[in-house]
Amino acid sequence: MSDSYNVVGIGNAIVDVITTAEDAFLETHGMAKGSMTLVDETRAEALYTAMGNTTMTSGGSAGNTIAGIASLGGRTAYIGKVHDDVLGTAFRHDITAVGATFRTPPTTSGPTTARCLIFVTPDAQRTMHTYLGACVTLGPADVDAELVAAAQVTYLEGYLYDEPHAKEAFHKAADIAHAAGRKVALSLSDAFCVNRHRDAFLALVDHHVDIVFANESEIEALFETDRIETATERIRAMTDLAAITRDARGSIVVSADSVIEVPSVHVEHVVDTTGAGDLYAAGFLYALTTGASHRACAELGSAAAADIIAHVGARPQSPLARLLASV
Amino acid sequence: MSDSYNVVGIGNAIVDVITTAEDAFLETHGMAKGSMTLVDETRAEALYTAMGNTTMTSGGSAGNTIAGIASLGGRTAYIGKVHDDVLGTAFRHDITAVGATFRTPPTTSGPTTARCLIFVTPDAQRTMHTYLGACVTLGPADVDAELVAAAQVTYLEGYLYDEPHAKEAFHKAADIAHAAGRKVALSLSDAFCVNRHRDAFLALVDHHVDIVFANESEIEALFETDRIETATERIRAMTDLAAITRDARGSIVVSADSVIEVPSVHVEHVVDTTGAGDLYAAGFLYALTTGASHRACAELGSAAAADIIAHVGARPQSPLARLLASV
Repeated sequence: MSDSYNVVGIGNAIVDVITTAEDAFLETHGMAKGSMTLVDETRAEALYTAMGNTTMTSGGSAGNTIAGIASLGGRTAYIGKVHDDVLGTAFRHDITAVGATFRTPPTTSGPTTARCLIFVTPDAQRTMHTYLGACVTLGPADVDAELVAAAQVTYLEGYLYDEPHAKEAFHKAADIAHAAGRKVALSLSDAFCVNRHRDAFLALVDHHVDIVFANESEIEALFETDRIETATERIRAMTDLAAITRDARGSIVVSADSVIEVPSVHVEHVVDTTGAGDLYAAGFLYALTTGASHRACAELGSAAAADIIAHVGARPQSPLARLLASV
Repeated sequence: MSDSYNVVGIGNAIVDVITTAEDAFLETHGMAKGSMTLVDETRAEALYTAMGNTTMTSGGSAGNTIAGIASLGGRTAYIGKVHDDVLGTAFRHDITAVGATFRTPPTTSGPTTARCLIFVTPDAQRTMHTYLGACVTLGPADVDAELVAAAQVTYLEGYLYDEPHAKEAFHKAADIAHAAGRKVALSLSDAFCVNRHRDAFLALVDHHVDIVFANESEIEALFETDRIETATERIRAMTDLAAITRDARGSIVVSADSVIEVPSVHVEHVVDTTGAGDLYAAGFLYALTTGASHRACAELGSAAAADIIAHVGARPQSPLARLLASV
C-alpha cells in the first residue's frame, strides 16, 4: 500500500467572514462568546449587515487543518461540499493553492457556499455564526474511497455531525480507512456540538476512532465531567491517542503508555484565536505521520497554533515549513 | 453652507485579493515589485490561479482613505462603481459598515466588480495587479453634486485617471467643490500612473487641486526630477498644500508658509505596506478638517499609516479613533 497522503480531511467547506467587535456587540445580539452557533441564511444576512469591515478567507475546521499540514510540507487531500459560486471558487482556489487535492464536485443547485461570520473581540476570542449552506448536502457518496485508503490518517471534523448524512459518511470513511490499515482521527470541534451529539460521538470514538483532538471543555462535555483528570482517564480507555489542548497552558497527550504535558508556545500579541485548535491538529498530525514522538507532535502542534493566533484568519499567511527547524 | 461631511472620496471601488509570495514568484511572473499593473480579466484569472492562499477584503485607494477617516470618527462619503455581484455587495457592506455614505448605483450589466491581486513579499512590500472591471464605467453622471458640495474636502484618487471618463468626472467634481467654497485634494497614487498621465496631472494640479498627496517617487515622476528638493519647490508653487510621504523617513508638509518634516511612527514588525499612503491621507485629512495644524495632520497621518502596515490588508481592523489620544 502506498502512502500517497499524510492526511485526508473531511469537513464543512466554509468561507470565513471576519470582523472585530466589542463585547457589547455580542451582548446586544445575544451571542454566546467563544461558541459556534448554527444560523439560517436569513439570520446570517442580518448579522452580516450588522458587522463592521470584513475580511473573507477560506476556513472550515478540517480545511484549516489540511491547509496547515500542506503548509508544513505534507501531502493532503480534502473532502467537503461547496456550491459552484464565487465563494465556492475561492474556497477551492485556496485549498488547492497550498497543494491539497480537492476533487469533491461542487453543487450546482440548492444552497450557496457556507459562510462563517466570525466576531473577534479585543481579547482575541472568536465567536462564530455559521450558515452551513451547501455543506448539508455532503453524504457518503462524497467519501472518495481511493483518497481515504491512500491516506495515513483520515481526519473527521466533529462539526460535520450537524449535517444529516454526516454520520453515514463518517462511518463509511472510517471503515475504508481501517480496511486499508489506516488510522482515523476525530476533532470534537466545539463543546456545544459535543452536547448536541454526545451519544453518537461516544459510540464513534469508542468503536471507530483512533486519535481524538479536543480542548478541555469539549472533552469534559463528552464525558459530562468538570474534572480534566476524569476526562483524561475516560478518553485513555477509549482510544489509542488523544491530544487535549488547554489554550496558553499547553496540551496533554494521552496514550496507553503515557500522559505527557507539553507547554504552549508564547505569543507576544495574540490577535485572533480562530483556528488555534485546527492548526494544533495540523502540526500534530504532520509530525505523527512523519514518525515523530508524541511529545514532538504536541510541540509542532503548539508552534503551528502560535503562528495562526498572531494574525487575523485561520489559514497560514506564510509557509509553516519554517517551523520545522524550530521544534 | 453646512459641513455634512469631512471628506468625500472618488475612486476605484476594488476588492483586494491578498496573498504572500516570495521574490522569486514575482520574477517568474515578470512582475515589477512595488508597482500597480493594470490587467485584463484573462490575465487576472491566470494570476489568481497561480496565487497561494488568499484573503479578500475591500480596498481601492480612496476607499481605504475614506474608511480610515470614518474609523477616526469623521463623516465621509464615497463615490465609486461596483457591479451588483458578490464582491460588489461585500465592498458596499464594508464601506457603509464603517459609516460612510455610499450611494453610487451598481452596474447590473457589463464587467464584474474590480479586483486587485496583491502579492506581499517577505519585506512587506506589495505588488499589485488590478482588473478594473466595473470601475471603468464611472463617469461624470456618478459625481453626486450634493455630496461634493457638502464635503469640506473632495479627495480624488489618481488611479482613476486610467479610466476613460475619469477626467471629466474629476473636473466636474472640482468645479462643484470650488463653487461651494470647498477644497479639492488629489493623490498621485503611483509613479507609473503619473508617467501615464503626467500632462493631465500637471494641468489638474495647477488649476484644480488645492491639496496634493504623493510619495517621493510619485512627486519626482510628476516633475521629471530625481531631486526631492526640486519637486518640493515645484509643487509648492502649484498648490496650497502638499504632503509628501517618504516611508520610514516620515513625511514633508509643503505650504506657502513653511516646509515641515515630520518623522514616521515606528512599527516593530511591518507585515504588509498595502494602504500605507491611503491611511496617511486619512489621518492627515481627518486632522485637517477638524482644524489641526499641518504638523498635527502629518502626525496623525503617520500614526494611521503605522497602524495599517502592522497587519495584512489596507482597511483598519479596529477603530482608529484610539489614535486620537496619542497624537
